[in-house]
Amino acid sequence: MKRSLGPRALLYPTPVVVVGSYDAAGKPNVMTAAWAGVCCSRPPCVAVSIRRSRYSYEGIVRRQAFTLSIASTEHVAQVDYFGLVSGATEDKFAVAGLTPVRADTVDAPYVAEFPIALECRLRQAIDLGVHTQFVGEVLDFKADESVLGPEGLPDIEKMRPFLYAPGQGTYYEIGPALARAFSVGKGSCA
Amino acid sequence: MKRSLGPRALLYPTPVVVVGSYDAAGKPNVMTAAWAGVCCSRPPCVAVSIRRSRYSYEGIVRRQAFTLSIASTEHVAQVDYFGLVSGATEDKFAVAGLTPVRADTVDAPYVAEFPIALECRLRQAIDLGVHTQFVGEVLDFKADESVLGPEGLPDIEKMRPFLYAPGQGTYYEIGPALARAFSVGKGSCA
Repeated sequence: MKRSLGPRALLYPTPVVVVGSYDAAGKPNVMTAAWAGVCCSRPPCVAVSIRRSRYSYEGIVRRQAFTLSIASTEHVAQVDYFGLVSGATEDKFAVAGLTPVRADTVDAPYVAEFPIALECRLRQAIDLGVHTQFVGEVLDFKADESVLGPEGLPDIEKMRPFLYAPGQGTYYEIGPALARAFSVGKGSCA
Repeated sequence: MKRSLGPRALLYPTPVVVVGSYDAAGKPNVMTAAWAGVCCSRPPCVAVSIRRSRYSYEGIVRRQAFTLSIASTEHVAQVDYFGLVSGATEDKFAVAGLTPVRADTVDAPYVAEFPIALECRLRQAIDLGVHTQFVGEVLDFKADESVLGPEGLPDIEKMRPFLYAPGQGTYYEIGPALARAFSVGKGSCA
C-alpha cells in the first residue's frame, strides 16, 4: 500500500555534479548540485538547476557557460565542501587543494583532479520557482584516460562516481552491475 | 591527462524512471527513460526527456500529465522491457504482469508494484532537438510503506532502485553509504 507524502522533489538516485564558472573578476568557482541530468541526446544537452541566490548564478549567465565535473569517491569531502560555502567569500579551489583548468570550448573552468568534465554552452535559463534550470549544450566531454574502457568510453566501475539520496542527506557508492540494458527485458516478460 | 571525446550526452549516474501515461483510447502505457532528474525544489518539479516519435509523447501532451515510477532491482527485466517495445503495438502492463493504478492528482497511471510514484502535471514541454524535455510539477509523491525510514521519508537502501551507466548499456545497483552530505566536507579541506 502506498502512502501519499504530498508534493515533493525527490528522485532516486540523483547524480552529484560540480558546476564550474568564472566570477566577474575571473576567479574560478565551483558549486555542488544534485538537481541535474541529461536532457537531450542530439544536440547533446545537460541540465542543472541553481538557485538565483547562488554566487555561481551570475557567473554562468554573464559568460553563458558552465562546466560539470564528476568526482570519484576519493574526493567526496571536497565535493561536499563545494556545496557548503559560497564562492563570494572563499576561493574554493585553493581551500580544497584542487586545480582549475580553463575549458577548451567555453569560458568556464573544470576540476583537473576529477575524472570527467563536460564543457557546456548555456542554451536556456528556465525559471521554474526557487530554482532556475540551466540547459547547456555539451561542446566537449573530457575523461581521464584512466577511466576509459576498451571501447574508449568511460567505464563507471573505473570512474567510481557517487550518487545522492535526496531526503536522506547521504552519498552512496555505485554498486555492482545488475543487468544489461536493452537486453535483460527481451522475452523475459511474456 | 584528459582525453577529449567530443560533444556527448553522458552523465554518471543517471536514474531509471518509468514514465506512465494514457493513450488516446485510455489504455495505460509506460516507457523507460534515463534522461531525467529533479529540476526545482519549490514548486517541486522533475524533468524527463522523450523523443517525439515515442508513443507516450502524444498521451502526455493530450492529458497534460505523466507519472514517474521507480522500480526496485527485482523488476529490472520489466523496466528494461518497457524501453524495448512500443505501446502502439503492445499492452506493456499486461505483458509484464504489472498493475496500472490511476494517479489521484493527475490523469496518468503509475505502476502499483514499484515502490515509488511521482504524480506530475505537465508544466512545460521544451523542444531541445531529438528530445523534448517535459517539466512536470509533482502534485503528489507516493511511496510504499515498506521503503520508508523512521522519519517517514524513503530509504534508498530499502527501496533498492538501480541506475544506468550511459554509453555502457548497463544497469547498476546502489552501493554502500559513502558519507553524510552537508557534513563530510566541513573543515576537512582546510
